[in-house]
Amino acid sequence: MSAPEPTPLTTTPPPVLPLQEEEEEQLHSRGIADHDATRQARQQAVGQRPGTLVVREDSLKPRLFLISYADDFLEEREYHDYDHLLAYFRQHPERRHWIDVRGYDDLPLMQRLQEDFRIHPLQMEDVLGDFQRAKVEETEDGLFLVSRMTEFTRLLDIDDDQLSIFTGPNYVLTFQDDYEDCLEAVRQRLRSTRSTIRRRSSLYLAYALTDVVLDHYYPTMAAIGDYLEVLEERIFQGNSDRRVLNRILHIKKDIVRFRRLVYPERDKIAELLRLPDEEIPEEIKVFFKDCYDHAIQALDLAESYRETVSSLIDLYMSDQSNRANEVMKVLTIISSIFIPLSFVVGLYGMNFQREAPDGRINYLNMPELYSPWGYPILLAVLALIVIGQLTYFYRKGWLTKR
Amino acid sequence: MSAPEPTPLTTTPPPVLPLQEEEEEQLHSRGIADHDATRQARQQAVGQRPGTLVVREDSLKPRLFLISYADDFLEEREYHDYDHLLAYFRQHPERRHWIDVRGYDDLPLMQRLQEDFRIHPLQMEDVLGDFQRAKVEETEDGLFLVSRMTEFTRLLDIDDDQLSIFTGPNYVLTFQDDYEDCLEAVRQRLRSTRSTIRRRSSLYLAYALTDVVLDHYYPTMAAIGDYLEVLEERIFQGNSDRRVLNRILHIKKDIVRFRRLVYPERDKIAELLRLPDEEIPEEIKVFFKDCYDHAIQALDLAESYRETVSSLIDLYMSDQSNRANEVMKVLTIISSIFIPLSFVVGLYGMNFQREAPDGRINYLNMPELYSPWGYPILLAVLALIVIGQLTYFYRKGWLTKR
Amino acid sequence: MSAPEPTPLTTTPPPVLPLQEEEEEQLHSRGIADHDATRQARQQAVGQRPGTLVVREDSLKPRLFLISYADDFLEEREYHDYDHLLAYFRQHPERRHWIDVRGYDDLPLMQRLQEDFRIHPLQMEDVLGDFQRAKVEETEDGLFLVSRMTEFTRLLDIDDDQLSIFTGPNYVLTFQDDYEDCLEAVRQRLRSTRSTIRRRSSLYLAYALTDVVLDHYYPTMAAIGDYLEVLEERIFQGNSDRRVLNRILHIKKDIVRFRRLVYPERDKIAELLRLPDEEIPEEIKVFFKDCYDHAIQALDLAESYRETVSSLIDLYMSDQSNRANEVMKVLTIISSIFIPLSFVVGLYGMNFQREAPDGRINYLNMPELYSPWGYPILLAVLALIVIGQLTYFYRKGWLTKR
Amino acid sequence: MSAPEPTPLTTTPPPVLPLQEEEEEQLHSRGIADHDATRQARQQAVGQRPGTLVVREDSLKPRLFLISYADDFLEEREYHDYDHLLAYFRQHPERRHWIDVRGYDDLPLMQRLQEDFRIHPLQMEDVLGDFQRAKVEETEDGLFLVSRMTEFTRLLDIDDDQLSIFTGPNYVLTFQDDYEDCLEAVRQRLRSTRSTIRRRSSLYLAYALTDVVLDHYYPTMAAIGDYLEVLEERIFQGNSDRRVLNRILHIKKDIVRFRRLVYPERDKIAELLRLPDEEIPEEIKVFFKDCYDHAIQALDLAESYRETVSSLIDLYMSDQSNRANEVMKVLTIISSIFIPLSFVVGLYGMNFQREAPDGRINYLNMPELYSPWGYPILLAVLALIVIGQLTYFYRKGWLTKR
Amino acid sequence: MSAPEPTPLTTTPPPVLPLQEEEEEQLHSRGIADHDATRQARQQAVGQRPGTLVVREDSLKPRLFLISYADDFLEEREYHDYDHLLAYFRQHPERRHWIDVRGYDDLPLMQRLQEDFRIHPLQMEDVLGDFQRAKVEETEDGLFLVSRMTEFTRLLDIDDDQLSIFTGPNYVLTFQDDYEDCLEAVRQRLRSTRSTIRRRSSLYLAYALTDVVLDHYYPTMAAIGDYLEVLEERIFQGNSDRRVLNRILHIKKDIVRFRRLVYPERDKIAELLRLPDEEIPEEIKVFFKDCYDHAIQALDLAESYRETVSSLIDLYMSDQSNRANEVMKVLTIISSIFIPLSFVVGLYGMNFQREAPDGRINYLNMPELYSPWGYPILLAVLALIVIGQLTYFYRKGWLTKR
Repeated sequence: MSAPEPTPLTTTPPPVLPLQEEEEEQLHSRGIADHDATRQARQQAVGQRPGTLVVREDSLKPRLFLISYADDFLEEREYHDYDHLLAYFRQHPERRHWIDVRGYDDLPLMQRLQEDFRIHPLQMEDVLGDFQRAKVEETEDGLFLVSRMTEFTRLLDIDDDQLSIFTGPNYVLTFQDDYEDCLEAVRQRLRSTRSTIRRRSSLYLAYALTDVVLDHYYPTMAAIGDYLEVLEERIFQGNSDRRVLNRILHIKKDIVRFRRLVYPERDKIAELLRLPDEEIPEEIKVFFKDCYDHAIQALDLAESYRETVSSLIDLYMSDQSNRANEVMKVLTIISSIFIPLSFVVGLYGMNFQREAPDGRINYLNMPELYSPWGYPILLAVLALIVIGQLTYFYRKGWLTKR
Repeated sequence: MSAPEPTPLTTTPPPVLPLQEEEEEQLHSRGIADHDATRQARQQAVGQRPGTLVVREDSLKPRLFLISYADDFLEEREYHDYDHLLAYFRQHPERRHWIDVRGYDDLPLMQRLQEDFRIHPLQMEDVLGDFQRAKVEETEDGLFLVSRMTEFTRLLDIDDDQLSIFTGPNYVLTFQDDYEDCLEAVRQRLRSTRSTIRRRSSLYLAYALTDVVLDHYYPTMAAIGDYLEVLEERIFQGNSDRRVLNRILHIKKDIVRFRRLVYPERDKIAELLRLPDEEIPEEIKVFFKDCYDHAIQALDLAESYRETVSSLIDLYMSDQSNRANEVMKVLTIISSIFIPLSFVVGLYGMNFQREAPDGRINYLNMPELYSPWGYPILLAVLALIVIGQLTYFYRKGWLTKR
Repeated sequence: MSAPEPTPLTTTPPPVLPLQEEEEEQLHSRGIADHDATRQARQQAVGQRPGTLVVREDSLKPRLFLISYADDFLEEREYHDYDHLLAYFRQHPERRHWIDVRGYDDLPLMQRLQEDFRIHPLQMEDVLGDFQRAKVEETEDGLFLVSRMTEFTRLLDIDDDQLSIFTGPNYVLTFQDDYEDCLEAVRQRLRSTRSTIRRRSSLYLAYALTDVVLDHYYPTMAAIGDYLEVLEERIFQGNSDRRVLNRILHIKKDIVRFRRLVYPERDKIAELLRLPDEEIPEEIKVFFKDCYDHAIQALDLAESYRETVSSLIDLYMSDQSNRANEVMKVLTIISSIFIPLSFVVGLYGMNFQREAPDGRINYLNMPELYSPWGYPILLAVLALIVIGQLTYFYRKGWLTKR
Repeated sequence: MSAPEPTPLTTTPPPVLPLQEEEEEQLHSRGIADHDATRQARQQAVGQRPGTLVVREDSLKPRLFLISYADDFLEEREYHDYDHLLAYFRQHPERRHWIDVRGYDDLPLMQRLQEDFRIHPLQMEDVLGDFQRAKVEETEDGLFLVSRMTEFTRLLDIDDDQLSIFTGPNYVLTFQDDYEDCLEAVRQRLRSTRSTIRRRSSLYLAYALTDVVLDHYYPTMAAIGDYLEVLEERIFQGNSDRRVLNRILHIKKDIVRFRRLVYPERDKIAELLRLPDEEIPEEIKVFFKDCYDHAIQALDLAESYRETVSSLIDLYMSDQSNRANEVMKVLTIISSIFIPLSFVVGLYGMNFQREAPDGRINYLNMPELYSPWGYPILLAVLALIVIGQLTYFYRKGWLTKR
Repeated sequence: MSAPEPTPLTTTPPPVLPLQEEEEEQLHSRGIADHDATRQARQQAVGQRPGTLVVREDSLKPRLFLISYADDFLEEREYHDYDHLLAYFRQHPERRHWIDVRGYDDLPLMQRLQEDFRIHPLQMEDVLGDFQRAKVEETEDGLFLVSRMTEFTRLLDIDDDQLSIFTGPNYVLTFQDDYEDCLEAVRQRLRSTRSTIRRRSSLYLAYALTDVVLDHYYPTMAAIGDYLEVLEERIFQGNSDRRVLNRILHIKKDIVRFRRLVYPERDKIAELLRLPDEEIPEEIKVFFKDCYDHAIQALDLAESYRETVSSLIDLYMSDQSNRANEVMKVLTIISSIFIPLSFVVGLYGMNFQREAPDGRINYLNMPELYSPWGYPILLAVLALIVIGQLTYFYRKGWLTKR
């Protein structure tokens, strides 16, 4: 049915370890509390009035991209003037269009987009707020889809950006607050003359976008998996200090976060599949069913990593107590050997007087000290004590490593 | 559709750390048991007869506020006489009214309100009891909504107050037992001539009130998030004493409490959305759907904080055992070095006699003591022992910090 | 609608702490295993044949109480002869009757009750077995409701008794195996001439009984809450011995038990609410809906206490390890200070001979001993060592409390 | 309705503690891994071809029992020839029959039974496999019920045997691989002339069998409960060694196993209750509803025991760390007292010379040694040090037991 | 109905312990992180374009097997040329065919298969991807079933391979990337002239294949169960080092993995059972119902093993702390005995001078040293101290093993 496409997809490789010194520092200073969650809570605090458009402070200036395509046609262009874009769009109702808005920092433009594409104020607010969970809503012209794109950063955090997709009869309108994105793979496929996307409805493009976002969960998970292996290695090498625990908890936070991102994604697709066939035709649903499998697999992976993390924590804790144990063993061995010896030599350091003041010899007072073989015999006795104890400890297995 | 409103919303900033000394004391004395839950249980214990109005002892004297509004009209007033308020309300059925009752400590007034607005006795009991979970019920004239407003206090507790909302065809009747509230934002928006609230039904006002309560969950969560970061910092700085654990458990209690507050909120809104369209028209439901997203996100945040708390407890426990370990290491290093040395010097403190009583020299008894280089050689041997042990401990990594 | 009723409700106050010595003993000897559960399992073991009435050994002799009432009428009496009661009951079909059977130890009477009120044998078995979970079943004449009444004993256990309620067109028949009960509040309200119970159907009386049982969960929970605070206080005061852990686990058991009692209560009411309106009219359901809220709140409280218990266990464990740590610190400080000192003084206790046998002075052998300032300098050195170590330990924070 | 039956039921008493020495050994050697589960996995491994009858190796030779009964008739007999049994069964279609097959080790007989009673091959396989979870299936003639009978052995394991019940219009056919069973109670009741079982359909007999199996869960649970109390006692007496932990974990395994046995039982009965009334008439369902309550209660108990087990593990762990703590305290007290003392006496064991070689008295070198009261004063000082330290330790509460 | 089949089934025996040295090494180096999950994440990362066939690098060259059968006929052959196979297949539409493709590394062949058997591109992608969860999908000609075959390797890992089954009216088309498989049992049964498979539809063959895969879960579980017992034994023998913990966590990972494999299997069969009877006739469903029971039992087993693993971790941890405790006891006993002794002998090593410089005898200075019985008495005192302490320790139970 669909022919294989030649252009290779370039996926961002997982971040390579080990980290640079300064990155270590930064990472350490970030800790395990979920800063993004806190930030999000703080931002949302600024009195959201429903349907009031507010652009977040750190938004980028918007850039407008348009890809117009038909079965045998493709035009790709960046527009600096929204009017031109709109004019072109309206001029060609027979083509399909992908309008890609990157950056939100132009409130009037946003309002015009809202009006021209009949977007509900609350949905526009979701777009600009940039921290909406994945969801699907029906609009007057089609669907409103929110996806969250993840990236695993060098600092072991998961960055996530929002991709908002509006579909219409002959267009797909996407919003994201990032110039670089992970949708390049879809553009490549569109550019291919044999692309299935060109030959299908705009809903299929929406699917392709959703799918490529889902596909990008795997490098994130692979990076986490790699990192977990590195941490495990470190614990096994026995040099697990507190930073290792710190990292494990950090990764655990990432995994929890990842699950919170992917769960709504799964629910979103499940809801899509429940929509009536008039909204989404059966042949598109087949593709979304595939997405659903992928989302489930990503969640499975996350679950598997959670188990690994909890095993790593168990290992770390056991390691810590092992090492405390080893410290104790050294103390015990050395004390047990030398404290008795010290007693013995102390014994013969006593000043009991052999010679009474009246000059009489008191043969009971420490005769050993006067024996000609006293000292060598004592040394032998001391050696025997040491050997006996070492044998005891060896039998207990305290002298061997572990 | 809805134009942006110019008046800035003033949200209460999260409480700033560090706490004052006396606050520390108070906080400590409050502990981690859920006192509010206990208090609440105790109050309810006083034999609730169904539908019997009882005013709680610590209620405030009621103050009555009326905001009457129409598309192009707004009047705001505090009434000291309920009759005047009622008269005015009945005189203007064409306007919409928000009757805001703050304080419950006037049983006859409460009974009159119950009769005049046809409130079911059990619902009135819920209002005055002040510890009802968030819920929605249908009444004869509209809806009865209960929301819980949260505030994060300087003593790291979550204060929550009840907001009871009755809607009618042309009125919204709210009850709260607090003169200061978090609804000021809604009043500000009403005062604006371009306010959407004015142009919509009283249900929309009920929505706006529900929404502003939900929005106030975020500062609470942000404060908790900030505080978690402070606690994490303290553990990382290594000076985590038991008070830190105490705080962590205190915050954990808050988070659990918060979830118990927000869960019913989510269920309430879900139930609202399931009401038939005659009760709540579709265009209002769209807004409540937005509320639903917010409630889910608040729960998500709480879940994320719970994970952080459990990570912090892990860290704290590992920290404690780390420090025990360090104490042990100091003991072990010092003992291991000096106990053998003590043995050696004890050895040469023995009194084995070189000279037998008969004057013969016993050359076997501790000849070292008589060697001219005996003492320097012994000192060198002691130094070697020390160096050997330090090397051993250094290699084990016990001498370096952690 | 329903006027406030003047008679004050007397609820049993929560048990006061501290416990008497002998109670402490008893409590200790009871431990944390769930004895009631065991007892219950053992009883049921005695071959329950379905529908066979067996009276438990420790049942009380039955006492029969009848309250007959109508809108403007009330008669209250204890009957010593069941026939008289039945005759009176049958004579007045126009009144409503509450037949209250306290104690089961009269099998023939139980069988007569079963026949006269057309009770299903299995339901009668549930009544007499006295350990049925809360449930509701439909009978030929109305409903069969089982509630469990809880009481928090001085020995920190939860005693629970069964209240079985059968409703009929004009009667409510209750069974309990206790002469003292918590239903006195309902009787008080019945006696009031303005009582709503009198004016409503027998189902309303069944509701009132169910509700008063539910209300009695709160003193139980309040007592648990108080006790948790006491335990927390003890841990904070630092004198938490094993008995404290024992208590915490005991209370945990109580909470778990309480939840197992209340969960079916909630399910029972939910099932009641799902019954068709012919069974339970809408206006009664409103009241049961209120009960439902109460049950949910009781479960919420139990959940909250569970969290507190788990926090207390964390605190206790951390406290224990803290104290082990403190013991270690004392050992380490004292050993670290005195073991090196002992070495030094041991050093100068050695017997290296300054004077060779040939009378030559060996100036290398411990010249310090012959220096005029040797001893004072040594004392100074020892003092310096001590000061140095104390400084080190002080900097580490080991000398300050915690 | 149903009259009480006079014959007493003999239930097997819970196993008595303490165990014999050799039993202790056996128990120890069995450990906590779930051998039965492993065994089961191993058996099932032998390539189950669907519907192929395979008799397990350790099966017993079958014995055939027939109880034929009518309202006023009962005949009970063991048949050694299946043909006779079948002939008798076919000769008396007007009676009801309970054919009880004990032991499976006769494949041709099993095949004949399968054919004569029209049993589906897969169901026959379930019968012979002997490790089928409790379930209900509809057959051509009635129902196929599987129950699992439990027994708590002296070695603290739960033995479970399968009871397979096929019902037909006028017969009940049961299979079990055990000559001794727990169904004797049902036979006793059948023998009674006033038995309800005789007067009801064969489904009622199936119910009675299911019920008696359920009733046998209680002695099992009671035995577990008793054993938990014994274990708790041991921990409280302070002599909890590792065997106690071992036992706790063993019992935990039993409880988990028990739950896995009872859960399907509950589901089975729930499914029975959902069957249409033509399959199971309403008046039989009432009895199964009672079974359902029993299953729920058994699960409740198991849940309660699980909590107790986790409390016991907490106690055990705390006990262990308590004892480590106590060991440490002894070490610390003795070291702290004697190490300083040793230093002091070492100090006066130094050889600083009062008399310089030139004969001059050096009054600075250890003048204490020459003071007439030197020794008594030193002893007093040592005593003071000891008293001081003991006071310190006493105040810390280290000298008192716990 | 179905006669027993004579050919014995050869199931792969569980791997035998102990492991070889080099295997130990390999195992150790694999650790507990879920490498397969990571690998899977990494593979999936390679930009899956929907419906684009990509063959995994490590795929095998495909081999084609065809078994054609009818009620009284069977032909079994390996084809080296797909065209011949297809020709034969098309020539005999009256027979039933099992086409078994082993190995995927021939993209054009895969594409031809896709076209000839009308496979949806996404399903073909699932086949080649080789890491699809178990699932069922309806196709144009029948069903698409995915099963996962497990094997427990000598290195204690679970290898799983995918078996993809397409059913059509008269064929079953299977794909697997392995020349050796676990389906031999099915082939054996087909070869038997009395085989039921031959006499039934192709769906029954699909069932038989699904069932044999499920049956192969049991040897995997049995191997895990055996291994758990080995680990338990090791802990009980007291020589549990960190490798044992490592193994436990490794096995835990396997169990978690196994559950993740079997859960979808259960869901798949449940979905199969819900398909309309036209898709799967009732008489086939009966067999799948049996499969469902098996899947449930496999999950039950996995659950039981999880509990065992958590018990083993508890045991291990308790063992570790036990051993630390024992080390401490040795230290404490030896220190407590000899430190006081050392003090006593140190005491009599002091140099208090009996003879003042002026020659006067100072009888207060250490008169013991001059007593004729001084030394023997001292030795006796020392012996008494030792005996006293040993008695104390013996009473505490510190001298006996555990």
